[in-house]
Amino acid sequence: MSSPVPSRFHGVIPPVVTPRTSSGEIDVPSLERVTQHLLDGGVDGLFVLGSSGEVTHMTNSERDTVVRTIAGVNAGAVPLMVGAVEQTTNRVIEEARRVVSLGAEALVVTSQYYAISNAAETDTHYRSIHAAVDVPIFAYDVPVRTHFKLPVDLLVSLGADGILAGVKDSSGDDVSFRQLLLAAKNIPNFDIFTGHEVVVDGALLGGAQGAVPGLANVDPRGYKNLYEAAKAGDWAKAAAEQDRLADVFNIVFTPKPGRLSGNAAGLGAFKTALQLMGIVDTNTMSAPMLALDADEAEAIRVILTRNGLL
Amino acid sequence: MSSPVPSRFHGVIPPVVTPRTSSGEIDVPSLERVTQHLLDGGVDGLFVLGSSGEVTHMTNSERDTVVRTIAGVNAGAVPLMVGAVEQTTNRVIEEARRVVSLGAEALVVTSQYYAISNAAETDTHYRSIHAAVDVPIFAYDVPVRTHFKLPVDLLVSLGADGILAGVKDSSGDDVSFRQLLLAAKNIPNFDIFTGHEVVVDGALLGGAQGAVPGLANVDPRGYKNLYEAAKAGDWAKAAAEQDRLADVFNIVFTPKPGRLSGNAAGLGAFKTALQLMGIVDTNTMSAPMLALDADEAEAIRVILTRNGLL
Amino acid sequence: MSSPVPSRFHGVIPPVVTPRTSSGEIDVPSLERVTQHLLDGGVDGLFVLGSSGEVTHMTNSERDTVVRTIAGVNAGAVPLMVGAVEQTTNRVIEEARRVVSLGAEALVVTSQYYAISNAAETDTHYRSIHAAVDVPIFAYDVPVRTHFKLPVDLLVSLGADGILAGVKDSSGDDVSFRQLLLAAKNIPNFDIFTGHEVVVDGALLGGAQGAVPGLANVDPRGYKNLYEAAKAGDWAKAAAEQDRLADVFNIVFTPKPGRLSGNAAGLGAFKTALQLMGIVDTNTMSAPMLALDADEAEAIRVILTRNGLL
Amino acid sequence: MSSPVPSRFHGVIPPVVTPRTSSGEIDVPSLERVTQHLLDGGVDGLFVLGSSGEVTHMTNSERDTVVRTIAGVNAGAVPLMVGAVEQTTNRVIEEARRVVSLGAEALVVTSQYYAISNAAETDTHYRSIHAAVDVPIFAYDVPVRTHFKLPVDLLVSLGADGILAGVKDSSGDDVSFRQLLLAAKNIPNFDIFTGHEVVVDGALLGGAQGAVPGLANVDPRGYKNLYEAAKAGDWAKAAAEQDRLADVFNIVFTPKPGRLSGNAAGLGAFKTALQLMGIVDTNTMSAPMLALDADEAEAIRVILTRNGLL
Repeated sequence: MSSPVPSRFHGVIPPVVTPRTSSGEIDVPSLERVTQHLLDGGVDGLFVLGSSGEVTHMTNSERDTVVRTIAGVNAGAVPLMVGAVEQTTNRVIEEARRVVSLGAEALVVTSQYYAISNAAETDTHYRSIHAAVDVPIFAYDVPVRTHFKLPVDLLVSLGADGILAGVKDSSGDDVSFRQLLLAAKNIPNFDIFTGHEVVVDGALLGGAQGAVPGLANVDPRGYKNLYEAAKAGDWAKAAAEQDRLADVFNIVFTPKPGRLSGNAAGLGAFKTALQLMGIVDTNTMSAPMLALDADEAEAIRVILTRNGLL
Repeated sequence: MSSPVPSRFHGVIPPVVTPRTSSGEIDVPSLERVTQHLLDGGVDGLFVLGSSGEVTHMTNSERDTVVRTIAGVNAGAVPLMVGAVEQTTNRVIEEARRVVSLGAEALVVTSQYYAISNAAETDTHYRSIHAAVDVPIFAYDVPVRTHFKLPVDLLVSLGADGILAGVKDSSGDDVSFRQLLLAAKNIPNFDIFTGHEVVVDGALLGGAQGAVPGLANVDPRGYKNLYEAAKAGDWAKAAAEQDRLADVFNIVFTPKPGRLSGNAAGLGAFKTALQLMGIVDTNTMSAPMLALDADEAEAIRVILTRNGLL
Repeated sequence: MSSPVPSRFHGVIPPVVTPRTSSGEIDVPSLERVTQHLLDGGVDGLFVLGSSGEVTHMTNSERDTVVRTIAGVNAGAVPLMVGAVEQTTNRVIEEARRVVSLGAEALVVTSQYYAISNAAETDTHYRSIHAAVDVPIFAYDVPVRTHFKLPVDLLVSLGADGILAGVKDSSGDDVSFRQLLLAAKNIPNFDIFTGHEVVVDGALLGGAQGAVPGLANVDPRGYKNLYEAAKAGDWAKAAAEQDRLADVFNIVFTPKPGRLSGNAAGLGAFKTALQLMGIVDTNTMSAPMLALDADEAEAIRVILTRNGLL
Repeated sequence: MSSPVPSRFHGVIPPVVTPRTSSGEIDVPSLERVTQHLLDGGVDGLFVLGSSGEVTHMTNSERDTVVRTIAGVNAGAVPLMVGAVEQTTNRVIEEARRVVSLGAEALVVTSQYYAISNAAETDTHYRSIHAAVDVPIFAYDVPVRTHFKLPVDLLVSLGADGILAGVKDSSGDDVSFRQLLLAAKNIPNFDIFTGHEVVVDGALLGGAQGAVPGLANVDPRGYKNLYEAAKAGDWAKAAAEQDRLADVFNIVFTPKPGRLSGNAAGLGAFKTALQLMGIVDTNTMSAPMLALDADEAEAIRVILTRNGLL
């Protein structure tokens, strides 16, 4: 069964955004402030080098800077999960070893991408990575990026064998997510997180250990309140808080239709909100993504204000 | 806001399966027994000519037989929603008029399919159908069949204009479903149903009016218990009942991998369960779908037995 | 091997467009003129009730009118292939019998759609239809509509067994098309057609029996010239004619981005060209599709003029 | 217009496979023999670090070894195109600079992947890479891996601006390929290659400068014969050679259904053929891909033998 004693990995674990200076460099002081803002918000862990952190768009030396900076501010306060984002097994292993050496306490790893793979290779993929590194591994199920949905039975078998410590689910597939939650109840130390911002109450009701919502960069306290209401069995309060957060999430729909890529719109909205809140200096995106403009920022200001975040 | 007085359309509304004789004809006595079994199970409505009813595979005269049979047994006991399943607007209108003449109290209508359409045409599609018939219309969002996800903003605008009375969501997209639920709170008489079997508790927690789960053919009372627990605010009980139903849902995974189409596996499992329960005479499927075999039926018997359904 | 004596089905076989009056009725006199225009252009057959004919959007009584009208003008001059477009086997059989009774000499039939099917059911599908009707059946491979690519080995096996008389390929998959052409060389009376406008020279070089290009509504003579050059082994001339026709095909890209659905843009361009050429009275589309507007028609006029078609 | 004097980049340019030892290391002597085999076969260029070379699965140090080895054997004999395969702009630039320093005369670059991008960002992507390196850049259009089809108008605009020197098309979209060929006729120094094995005759008839077929690892002379027949205007001979090569291509269909991933089946067949021909020592694949087994190798032997390659 999933941990009677709560696992070290549970609750609200935001995927930390990566601020850049207006000239495009990693903005270390802003990143330090974001990290502190999250810790002050009561988060239960930090997910570094995730999609919301623009890991996709960072060079390896930039990735190193980001892990070092966040680890420095965190100073062991909460668990540090770090993405090892590369396209095939051996490249992931290189990446994994590097981020573990920089302080990762757990890894978040996708299936192979660009490579046209299958379930059997994915099984080998996770087993090979597990053999190569010495920290817990969470599978990251994100078919909108990898174009491969991790099958429930594969995840369950890797969990039962102790290869995976859990799953971060960004599949958008609510049916397989519930099946995974049910299966996870019988596997010790196998913790399931949703990566979606607006269904955290239902995920927790179904038995999830926590959430990794990008929006928690903006409102960590809101997600913590939701989580605590759920833990206390006050589901009406959890649902009400989720509804409020779903309104905050409308910030990602402020960019003009078609102007920005899917990446740039969502992540850019989080950064723009943090800029309006005075936590980061610019809303600059990693190249070649464009930042939100003044009109879009104004629309975000309205949403933040009506939700008491400004 | 969605109805302070509960809408006429709410709760558990199973998509009624269509039994066939071993020679492939509509099996009217078995269909009558299924209908009575559902009414005895306390369902709040019946959805006729849905995907679970194999509407896709029926000729028009078979469709007529099915609507007449179910309407006869129901005799006005609960509301009758009927699918008007055709590929383009004018063909839907012909179909809609026919099923209304046979007793449909509300229609369930997809976007166009086979046609390569877009949001603007879909808007015209629903408005034209609404102008042509005089009963409430529920949009059926089923991109796995239509290959077009109904956009939330289109559904909201059609709801606000009184064109749509609600949505049956089988999109598998939990994020847009929650956004729809939030939007629906501000639209009078706009009722949202999930079509997925294993996420009904979360859907109700988020504000859905009910569910249209194919599995409710097999266990209508289980879904009714779940719904009533949710209405009473006993979310722990609702989640526990959902977990039990999710185990029953494993019947759809009993067919040998690759032997049956997606349609045939799921719908065939429901029919096979009903056959084991003595409610329908055969588990024959509409041509060209194959029925589950004896081994697969035996696996279903095990699942039903451990859940107290046999 | 494919026919030493050329098959009755070969060469240029346009999918005839369906003109409508400005009030949306089938425009019989315009349809008669289109048919005569195609026969005058030297076409080798007519494909009625295809996607380019908006079969998708027609009621059954409209379909009947169209088949009767074209059959009347044709009066046996060239072979008449007719689409039997319905979503599942038994519905196709009903449709097939009706169009055969109206004069179809061959049928064009897709795999099931809306239904979630597989290769085994598709095999049964074609065998059941073949058992029910007495005319040659051509498979229509159009995954952009059916979302199921007909597997080459299935087509070959159905051809070898005499179930299929050939294939109309609109798959856009050039690799499987060539594999099909190679396989077809060893099957008697199995004729392969491309449905794509701009790759007819390559298709014929690879061994195709002909083409079913929507653009042949506009320029039947051009496609006939291409076909005859290819038959004569003058491939440089065939490629030059194909390049010219590819320029004519630019008419489908004249609609403003995002204004029209995929269907409406392509088919609307053909109709608008025929209107400019004085062959049809309006460019009205089947509901809910919008017609091209005056600006878009003007852009088409430029393209037709520079290609000597006005 | 595309080069009156043939471009430096034209003809048959195989994507060189990467042999591994049975313990999984890059097998340098085998790679040297493959390279010599290709040069002896009369190829017009070599494409290093392509998908057929398993670039996806190599670490950076393995990539370096491969480029150095091939460049050493080639010794300037034919042009060396090298893939710079990374997921986002700045990571591509790092990769590009490294492979240029190792001898790349031209780069082959995909759109971003894993990142969810769009056309505007892709435009910036190629312009940024062009600004950063000093060799010709070919776009690699491979939506089956990147899940983004490079739009024809974007490619044409980047070609006209001198950003791209051409395109390697593995899109499988024959219609857009022909449109690209037509557009390319008006752009100086913009050379189009097909990456598909079985449609090279049609591609050349339409105006392509050459082909990058993985199968040319196995039969470089066959593709060279096809190319020379086409250049001489002997299209019947070109088509006959293409048909023969399409039969050789059946080696990729020998793996048992479902046993191997898409990658492993195709690339493994090429390697297994080269092993049977005595050119490479093993058919070991990059982890986690499985190699073809003895039965599958035997089926390949039959195909090679009937085509005179053993």
